[in-house]
Amino acid sequence: MERTPPHPDPSQFALQQVLEALVDPVRRSIVTQLDTTGLDIKCGDFDIPVSKSTATHHFNVLREAGLIRQYYVGTARMNTLRRDDLDHVFPGLIEALISRPAARL
Amino acid sequence: MERTPPHPDPSQFALQQVLEALVDPVRRSIVTQLDTTGLDIKCGDFDIPVSKSTATHHFNVLREAGLIRQYYVGTARMNTLRRDDLDHVFPGLIEALISRPAARL
Repeated sequence: MERTPPHPDPSQFALQQVLEALVDPVRRSIVTQLDTTGLDIKCGDFDIPVSKSTATHHFNVLREAGLIRQYYVGTARMNTLRRDDLDHVFPGLIEALISRPAARL
Repeated sequence: MERTPPHPDPSQFALQQVLEALVDPVRRSIVTQLDTTGLDIKCGDFDIPVSKSTATHHFNVLREAGLIRQYYVGTARMNTLRRDDLDHVFPGLIEALISRPAARL
């Protein structure tokens, strides 16, 4: 458990930080893949066009903003979308940015 | 009329450009003031902590992304929130980011 990185409590979520996370198209793609599949996904299993070290940076930004929760299964770092927490603090935001199939990219 | 600057058609709106416009807190404040008052506001009448030239840049970014419409009344440049166009292309986005009074900044 000591390897689990820190996560903000929903009371610490800030719209500015969430928007700075989601303005990046790679990070928005990570969130979209989690939301679309409804599954937890290993860091190495996302379809994103960046190096592993760049991907790690993007995951950190998403985790620190409260968008994803990370945990280990063996040596694999897994990612969960914090959809319930986000919907509670920012109602409609993920729906408007991510979930709506007709949303124009 | 020749002084009216160009505006994108809603078919040209892009989520990436809209997010890049709204990630800036000053630009988000401009949009919030337009939405909250429901009025058209002169460039010089917004409550924003930036110089006139910086403000002009922010208005240009908002106009080019499709968030505001600008027109002249005499020498005053007026600003209108394109709320209907935005709601049509990005349903729920302005509501989630701007209009909800409980939204955490």
